[in-house]
Amino acid sequence: MSETTVDTTTVPSLKFDSQGLIPVIVSHAEDNTVLMFAWMNQDALNKTQQTGLLHLYSRSRKSLWKKGETSGETFMVSKLMVDCDQDVLLAHVMPSAAGNACHTGRRSCFYRELKGNTLVFAEG
Amino acid sequence: MSETTVDTTTVPSLKFDSQGLIPVIVSHAEDNTVLMFAWMNQDALNKTQQTGLLHLYSRSRKSLWKKGETSGETFMVSKLMVDCDQDVLLAHVMPSAAGNACHTGRRSCFYRELKGNTLVFAEG
Repeated sequence: MSETTVDTTTVPSLKFDSQGLIPVIVSHAEDNTVLMFAWMNQDALNKTQQTGLLHLYSRSRKSLWKKGETSGETFMVSKLMVDCDQDVLLAHVMPSAAGNACHTGRRSCFYRELKGNTLVFAEG
Repeated sequence: MSETTVDTTTVPSLKFDSQGLIPVIVSHAEDNTVLMFAWMNQDALNKTQQTGLLHLYSRSRKSLWKKGETSGETFMVSKLMVDCDQDVLLAHVMPSAAGNACHTGRRSCFYRELKGNTLVFAEG
């Protein structure tokens, strides 16, 4: 498929990788803050579209994962965007609880800045 | 390394994958808009830190890639964030030209929404 076709088509042809996964960037629908990064397989995408709640694929547990299943921090997906190459997704989400995406209890998984060869805590 | 150690250490131990790559989310420093998604190898990370300009690794061309090398759309990296697991980077960038990250000429690579089984153009 040529670049032009990929860029203009309205027919999705998502590119899952050799393991059947596609990267998903999760950002807050209100202020665009990047909250976390994860993966979906086709099943997780289907469940997300069917329920409106973010579903992911856990590579460590090798299983479907409803975000917030244990923590209660579920995310309503307000928009699911696709990139130019159709090999990355961007989920705009609204939290249904406190809105802490990270397993450390923080709002975002990106709470440290890499400065030279040091990690500097940006918040929390 | 335990989760706790990973979460609190100030010593970076970035996890590059089996191909020596780490995913990089690129967002606009002013409004947090996610502009693109790419990869870095250690060399690209070094070059980014040394120059302050976003360098990436092109998986298709199998080579280091200074973002904007041909398009002129270079990005100054104002902050480089690391996620809780140290296996994803988030680069906050300021464009030095028009600020169109996508090879299609758009500001962001995420310009289409996946609605059911249709791609809807969100802008452009």
